[in-house]
Amino acid sequence: MSDAVSPLASPFPALPAIAGVTLRLARAGYKDWGRCDLTYVELAEGTAVAGVFTRNVCCSSEVDLGREGVALGKARALVVNAGNSNAFTGYRGREAVEQIMAQVAGHLGCAPDEVFVSSTGVIGVPLPKDKARAGVSAALTAAPCTWEEAARTIGTTDTFPKGAMAQAVVDGRTVTLAAIIKGSGMIAPDMATMLGYIFTDAAVEPAFLQELLSAANATSFSCITVDSDTSTSDTMLAFATGKAGNAPLRDFDSPGADAFAAALEDVCRQLAHLVVKDGEGAQKFIRIDVTGAVSDDSARRIGLAVANSPLVKTAIAGEDANWGRVVMAVGKAGEPADRDRLSIGFGGVWCAQQGLPLADYDEAPVAAHLKGLEVSVEIDIGLGEGRATVWTCDLTHGYISINADYRS
Amino acid sequence: MSDAVSPLASPFPALPAIAGVTLRLARAGYKDWGRCDLTYVELAEGTAVAGVFTRNVCCSSEVDLGREGVALGKARALVVNAGNSNAFTGYRGREAVEQIMAQVAGHLGCAPDEVFVSSTGVIGVPLPKDKARAGVSAALTAAPCTWEEAARTIGTTDTFPKGAMAQAVVDGRTVTLAAIIKGSGMIAPDMATMLGYIFTDAAVEPAFLQELLSAANATSFSCITVDSDTSTSDTMLAFATGKAGNAPLRDFDSPGADAFAAALEDVCRQLAHLVVKDGEGAQKFIRIDVTGAVSDDSARRIGLAVANSPLVKTAIAGEDANWGRVVMAVGKAGEPADRDRLSIGFGGVWCAQQGLPLADYDEAPVAAHLKGLEVSVEIDIGLGEGRATVWTCDLTHGYISINADYRS
Repeated sequence: MSDAVSPLASPFPALPAIAGVTLRLARAGYKDWGRCDLTYVELAEGTAVAGVFTRNVCCSSEVDLGREGVALGKARALVVNAGNSNAFTGYRGREAVEQIMAQVAGHLGCAPDEVFVSSTGVIGVPLPKDKARAGVSAALTAAPCTWEEAARTIGTTDTFPKGAMAQAVVDGRTVTLAAIIKGSGMIAPDMATMLGYIFTDAAVEPAFLQELLSAANATSFSCITVDSDTSTSDTMLAFATGKAGNAPLRDFDSPGADAFAAALEDVCRQLAHLVVKDGEGAQKFIRIDVTGAVSDDSARRIGLAVANSPLVKTAIAGEDANWGRVVMAVGKAGEPADRDRLSIGFGGVWCAQQGLPLADYDEAPVAAHLKGLEVSVEIDIGLGEGRATVWTCDLTHGYISINADYRS
Repeated sequence: MSDAVSPLASPFPALPAIAGVTLRLARAGYKDWGRCDLTYVELAEGTAVAGVFTRNVCCSSEVDLGREGVALGKARALVVNAGNSNAFTGYRGREAVEQIMAQVAGHLGCAPDEVFVSSTGVIGVPLPKDKARAGVSAALTAAPCTWEEAARTIGTTDTFPKGAMAQAVVDGRTVTLAAIIKGSGMIAPDMATMLGYIFTDAAVEPAFLQELLSAANATSFSCITVDSDTSTSDTMLAFATGKAGNAPLRDFDSPGADAFAAALEDVCRQLAHLVVKDGEGAQKFIRIDVTGAVSDDSARRIGLAVANSPLVKTAIAGEDANWGRVVMAVGKAGEPADRDRLSIGFGGVWCAQQGLPLADYDEAPVAAHLKGLEVSVEIDIGLGEGRATVWTCDLTHGYISINADYRS
């Protein structure tokens, strides 16, 4: 955890215990720091798992092995290493992950592919096997810890611990989802990584859990960006212990499936927003609503082009209602758009409509809106019914300081 | 022109006169500044023209009308307005451009579509017709000026004037190319724009000139990036007056066509490099060589993904040999790559090969290389024969200061 907390930080929420989930910590000492850096989560027998992972083709062995485990759908444990991403380390990195999986499987009496491992931190350095073995050994017998302690321990240069929860009534039972996530500060020569974990006591079949997680991902994590750089380690896993005792959710015809899906989407969106609010150097949280595109996917691509534009992000950092830069970013997105049908607004006030600056445009309310911590941008393409919402943060001197003002 | 000159600036070269080309300046007063801001270039009868333009779908009327003129292939004049880009101004902006074209055509006795107009500066404000009319009127009768004066006048927040030349022997005659370009400083709430003009006394058929310009563009302007934001006004025009007296170049079978093509490509690359060297906040000029990709186009996309990565650009700004960030950027490019075949180097020294950090990697020469003003990054994908070179600059506090530390 960094010393300077993001101005967009929120207090860690009160997360309830999830039956079948036990959190433990240890000091593996992956870096020369006086803090826990290994998180171990033990999961009850029968826990279902689903996951979504980075699409970066240079992904870590943790991601490769995690994909294989998710395909089987069963989980008994999760290990998260902080301080070393173990990415781009070849066969030596893979061996370290396999060692952790075997060690935990031996302790629990389960199959190694029911043990999930994530790592975050410096890349190009194989995870040291001796430190991993001692750390796992200590964690297996450590006293249980809180959600907030675990959220801090999976973090690297995050400036605040991040968690979220939601509940739903399924089959007459109240089921609970609790989740933690890390990302995306970076002051060491690392790659930004986002690691997130959702735990629920609901009973959900693995295939349906995967379907719901993929759908929730599409409107949450796939709609945020801090700096357009895609990590090699991004991982989001959902674990369902089944301890709530509901009849297992198999598809949308199962009673309560809609409620559970909504709760899962709610948690994913909360987590996604927290990551943006801890974006490197972030001073403002930006919501971009795109309407009138030819499809929802086209709207999302336009939104991300705007959210990734350095000129839009710096303008908002400067509290400048520079709608011309938004026009530019829409135009470069590579999606259908018509200059003469385009409308742009900030904070609900249109600056330009149908391709022309508004004759009676009053900048005062827009300028006031831009001074706030949360800024919204409205873009109407004027061509169809497609819509999407994308979230990002501004681009400030803080981003440069974090990423350039040091040597490795 | 800005007061603080880029550390990567070079002196304006000695550009010779081009027969059939006369440069003149005027003060239209598009902004409240005490400098010339309208450049008028008169071209001899029979001048051929070719052009490449922004692919931003929200382009200006100047770009729309310029495309139409290039399709006809003939040019008699060029007018460049600085201080107002006239983009996103609807029918009023288009009328202003058509007025300039008609005014110059009336003076020269040519067709309006032989008059090319470019504008650069603030967007969303229609170019004022009265200022444009008075400015053009003054320019038509002004005394001729130098290349350097014209290069300064087309600039907006550029920190130094930019020009280039090359010669070739065609059909027994020495032909000369002289060119000026502006881009890409920005301290007003504008969109970055790149405007460039190449003039030659060679005789070249318009269709072949277009073929050569498009080919040269593909390995020069299409291979540079400052911040990934594509302007609405980018324009590159080539004018051939034919005054050198060579037999007109029609295709690659014409004597001297290869030599002329090489000279044109040389000028385009010089201009492209000058734009990068005046990139906003640039402190280092970065060359990225990609080899071993599945195709040249794939190599170029990978190179641009690296060149547009904020994490790579800030690492180089910090003189940090962070090859892990290069791995990340290669992986996110969306092009074929294999983590375990990838090699990364700086300044000709490999840091990682075949997906593994080098065991005997010596960082000292790499660290020394990164302290220089010019940095090279080598990336071998290890899959095929595709190769490309891309150029960019680093991302520094200067970029943030230029684009965020002010209000419009």
